Amino acid sequence: MPVETIDRLATELQAEAKRVRADVDSFFAKLLAPTADGRERLYEAMRHAAIGGGKRLRPLLTVASSRLFAIDPQRALRVGCAIEAIHVYSLIHDDLPCMDDADLRRGRATVHKVFGEAEAVLAGDSLHALAFEVLSDPATHEDPWVRSDLVLELAKAAGPSGMAGGQMMDLVAEGQQLDLPAITRLQQLKTGALIEYSVDAACIMAKLPPEARTPYRGYARNIGLAFQIADDLIDHSGDEAAAGKRTGKDAHAGKATFVSLSGPERARQQASFLVNQAIEHLSTHGEEADLLRAIARFAVERDH
Amino acid sequence: MPVETIDRLATELQAEAKRVRADVDSFFAKLLAPTADGRERLYEAMRHAAIGGGKRLRPLLTVASSRLFAIDPQRALRVGCAIEAIHVYSLIHDDLPCMDDADLRRGRATVHKVFGEAEAVLAGDSLHALAFEVLSDPATHEDPWVRSDLVLELAKAAGPSGMAGGQMMDLVAEGQQLDLPAITRLQQLKTGALIEYSVDAACIMAKLPPEARTPYRGYARNIGLAFQIADDLIDHSGDEAAAGKRTGKDAHAGKATFVSLSGPERARQQASFLVNQAIEHLSTHGEEADLLRAIARFAVERDH
Repeated sequence: MPVETIDRLATELQAEAKRVRADVDSFFAKLLAPTADGRERLYEAMRHAAIGGGKRLRPLLTVASSRLFAIDPQRALRVGCAIEAIHVYSLIHDDLPCMDDADLRRGRATVHKVFGEAEAVLAGDSLHALAFEVLSDPATHEDPWVRSDLVLELAKAAGPSGMAGGQMMDLVAEGQQLDLPAITRLQQLKTGALIEYSVDAACIMAKLPPEARTPYRGYARNIGLAFQIADDLIDHSGDEAAAGKRTGKDAHAGKATFVSLSGPERARQQASFLVNQAIEHLSTHGEEADLLRAIARFAVERDH
Repeated sequence: MPVETIDRLATELQAEAKRVRADVDSFFAKLLAPTADGRERLYEAMRHAAIGGGKRLRPLLTVASSRLFAIDPQRALRVGCAIEAIHVYSLIHDDLPCMDDADLRRGRATVHKVFGEAEAVLAGDSLHALAFEVLSDPATHEDPWVRSDLVLELAKAAGPSGMAGGQMMDLVAEGQQLDLPAITRLQQLKTGALIEYSVDAACIMAKLPPEARTPYRGYARNIGLAFQIADDLIDHSGDEAAAGKRTGKDAHAGKATFVSLSGPERARQQASFLVNQAIEHLSTHGEEADLLRAIARFAVERDH
């Protein structure tokens, strides 16, 4: 790829990522507008977690994937926000004292630190339900088959066959030395399933038959793993300002990661290989896939 | 109503409730079959909470309501089990040390006591997602509009506008003296929304237009409040064997209940008034509504 193209893609990605971050914030500000009947604190806790932080990688992926099929960007954004609601709920619960016991997230105090533990449990549960409310709302898509499929696949990606199952494998792995295949499987459930869904959701909205979705899922699976390796590298480097949370926790917990098993150099090579593979899955597409290519190429070299 | 009719209804209700309890157990046993890849403990925790306990009031209501419209009982059962999955997840999270800190539920040790707190959080989250997976599965209904609507209304009933919102109001109410209208509103969200949905779901499956659903929602709202008063009476009486959990907690926490505000005698009268009102909502129906009538009449006089 010529240098000018790479520069242009980087600029485009930056602009689009900024736009998606602003759009996601606006969406949550509207969805989580203050109430005044004893539930104020619940909505405040949800807004604290959902507005004004994070890379918004998942909504960005849905918006970028929707470009492949010329899907209305407003609809793509709604679906992306439903996915982000699931992601945010999982972070709130993950940060609880009985889980990771984290006091810092996205550069701010965690929900339970500000609002209390019970409030954090309920704020997470509420965002979980809201994700499905958003998806099944006719405003998301006029075709009920699409809405129903969006729900079915998100429920699988978020539940015990996906994210929640991966979190459990992660819990069990503490104090065990997993090998690379086991870590790969764990990450494919814990973070990969939701990232894959972020791309797959666009295919569902475009009513692609299941077999036609395969390359896009391949793209998503590759970048999901690449992102995880990038995360492990940041945790390993100990740069807390870049991470927006405490780093070095994996090493401290004695957890095996891609980096602890392969070393930082080979992990970096592996991430780069995965990115190239991801981009190859998009070879049938022209310019409309540039944003997805840019996400793959630049997002593993991200600041946080 | 002649005594013979009451006796017949009581017998029928007993038989049907027993059948639904067995069917719900079988459904969960299949849905939560053991895995063998690091998620065993998650599925075990879910099975502990979801199988072999509880009145299964919500699935019973869905099955009974489905009779009004001659809906396939297997489909009604699937929907009832999705609702029960939401109910069970809420009990698991409610029992956590940071919430009610309960060690006993449905006569057994709570999930976090047996499996640990992190496992309880994840088991609840997993059942939450599974509920939506079950509803959006084409096996639940062939019409995607119905599936999408079932999801939308359950998400509303479970989320911050419903159950989770009511739990938050309950948290905030600790140490406050709520009056009857405030308690009624709290209960309508905390437990009423899901009970109302249990009946409304049958109307959705029957594709009733919104205005035709009103009497059934009225029935559900009345019995929802009646059940809550019955629960408060059990808690007040201190019969732990009947309750299957610790009693007297509300008084201990200084919480106002229907019973503490009105006294047990007036609370009993109010429950009985609500039951009669509920049955009146079914006046356009013949024998096909007998099971719903029986639920209203006998379930407030239940053993637990």
